[in-house]
Amino acid sequence: MTSADTRVPEPVVWAHGTLRILDQRLLPDTVAYEDQADVRSVAAAIRDLKVRGAPAIGIAAAYGLVLAAQQGEDLEAAAATLKAARPTAVNLAWAVDRVRAVAADPDAALNEAQSIHAEDRAICRAIGSAGRHLLRDGATVMTHCNAGALAVSELGTATAPMYLAHDAGVEFRVIANETRPVLQGARLTVWELDRAGIDVTLACDSAAGRLMAEGAVDLIIVGADRVTANGDVVNKIGTATLAILARHFGIPFYVACPSSTFDPDTPCGADVEIEERSGDEVRQWPGLEVAAHIPARNPAFDVTPHELVSAFITDRGLLEPPFQQTLTALRRTP
Amino acid sequence: MTSADTRVPEPVVWAHGTLRILDQRLLPDTVAYEDQADVRSVAAAIRDLKVRGAPAIGIAAAYGLVLAAQQGEDLEAAAATLKAARPTAVNLAWAVDRVRAVAADPDAALNEAQSIHAEDRAICRAIGSAGRHLLRDGATVMTHCNAGALAVSELGTATAPMYLAHDAGVEFRVIANETRPVLQGARLTVWELDRAGIDVTLACDSAAGRLMAEGAVDLIIVGADRVTANGDVVNKIGTATLAILARHFGIPFYVACPSSTFDPDTPCGADVEIEERSGDEVRQWPGLEVAAHIPARNPAFDVTPHELVSAFITDRGLLEPPFQQTLTALRRTP
Repeated sequence: MTSADTRVPEPVVWAHGTLRILDQRLLPDTVAYEDQADVRSVAAAIRDLKVRGAPAIGIAAAYGLVLAAQQGEDLEAAAATLKAARPTAVNLAWAVDRVRAVAADPDAALNEAQSIHAEDRAICRAIGSAGRHLLRDGATVMTHCNAGALAVSELGTATAPMYLAHDAGVEFRVIANETRPVLQGARLTVWELDRAGIDVTLACDSAAGRLMAEGAVDLIIVGADRVTANGDVVNKIGTATLAILARHFGIPFYVACPSSTFDPDTPCGADVEIEERSGDEVRQWPGLEVAAHIPARNPAFDVTPHELVSAFITDRGLLEPPFQQTLTALRRTP
Repeated sequence: MTSADTRVPEPVVWAHGTLRILDQRLLPDTVAYEDQADVRSVAAAIRDLKVRGAPAIGIAAAYGLVLAAQQGEDLEAAAATLKAARPTAVNLAWAVDRVRAVAADPDAALNEAQSIHAEDRAICRAIGSAGRHLLRDGATVMTHCNAGALAVSELGTATAPMYLAHDAGVEFRVIANETRPVLQGARLTVWELDRAGIDVTLACDSAAGRLMAEGAVDLIIVGADRVTANGDVVNKIGTATLAILARHFGIPFYVACPSSTFDPDTPCGADVEIEERSGDEVRQWPGLEVAAHIPARNPAFDVTPHELVSAFITDRGLLEPPFQQTLTALRRTP
């Protein structure tokens, strides 16, 4: 166990026959795990964003179907309930289908869910190994949103190189962008990195260009929700802006993600429909509504063109341009 | 009087011998003017951002020195107190020096401050005339922070072309960036434009790149706190990022400012010390502290290199590159 393992709580825990989910909506004020009674409470935790991040959602749903199998529930209905909780989450359906295939036997179901969880930890560790050499003593890395332990398991994706470098004694700093509108950077990333003893500084998204101009940023590592066949990156709103700024200032821009994030069936980023979330997220703050009746645009993701990506940090190693060939080769040699 | 005149309150008012400053921190919920007792309360109002925007700060400081003259205070000390309230604001020092030169006579001081105020209104109108043709039917203009009536007087600077085009019946839209950390866009710009009947949409700063990539932005108009001799623009944090994005997407980027904002004595943006404000602005929200003990960077301004500016919209007309020659010519023919 590395030090990071013990310091950052996992978002989903199966222990002594009980499934526990960390309610991330309460962070950083309260670290509260909720015991899950049945598949319906797991679906509600996913729907209500208590658990977030594609891999963590998949793991939670896998264990949710285990509960259904153990309690003798209708497995088809249980699988449908879980899938409906976040219909756009590809990992969720994938994890549920994988457990469903063996769920006639509850022990096999648990074994499969635990395999998914263990594979995810191993993938994060491989991403960390592929990227940790990018962090050198004195370096400052900027990250966006939360592609950390809280979104995945154990080491996270964008954070995995940071946790491994920190464990190896490398002295680097992290600048975490607050990531409006939902503030995953300010609420989650700074909390988990600080808890692990990593030197982290918070900044507004709008300050990123200035910090780069000052020479305060040596590299950028972000996560990805989806990578299309040509290497375009769909990720949290603001990611593409960082990539354009990084190119302008000559700063390397890395995308850390499991190879399962590569989507060979979607040619390029323009083919991905970007979720537009409620304008209330932009207009409202806890305790303050800033522009009650004003229309607000709130695209949740953006597309970073592949030509702005220096390399992908993956569980299959560091992938460098040209990405189309690299990703195709990756798919041909599973 | 145009419709805009009657709808948007002025930030600084001298009436019946009393200086009143609108506390913009309370907008949009409360429209409250505060009577100023002396030069120290004016300096505090500037320091605490009750009044903000370079021209409005200059006007407030000019009247602040009038109070000092009327109350028989040490004028050198009063001028120093005012100048120290916001060291980046070049207009502040300029306005204070102008009143200081005649302040031995309190009536002359008041006359000079009122001249500065009246000139400022005329300048805004001239900026509007220079820039209103840039707004055509169907256009969408993005703006940042608040370089509006609230920051200046009457028509504002970046907003002056918008108010005049709106009065002329041009149908355009505005996207206002919320402008973290102090949310001048979300609290002030959308409020004053909406009050004037202009179609305005709010967006997070991090969404600007995505909106440009979608083709949702036709041009950008921002204000400036200071323009150096070579045309570099010192303005609210996030401005330079917009300029870099605009260049990337081939969108024109305009800076609207009075010619007094040009500072011929400072060669370039790198010579300007950027104010670093308290990290509390980044960490704290009304009702929520997101990262209590985490360090936070909070540069208040950034530098937009002159080569990213399409043109300056000024009271002396539209100034196009090369700026060094244009600005020198401007200074030689006052």
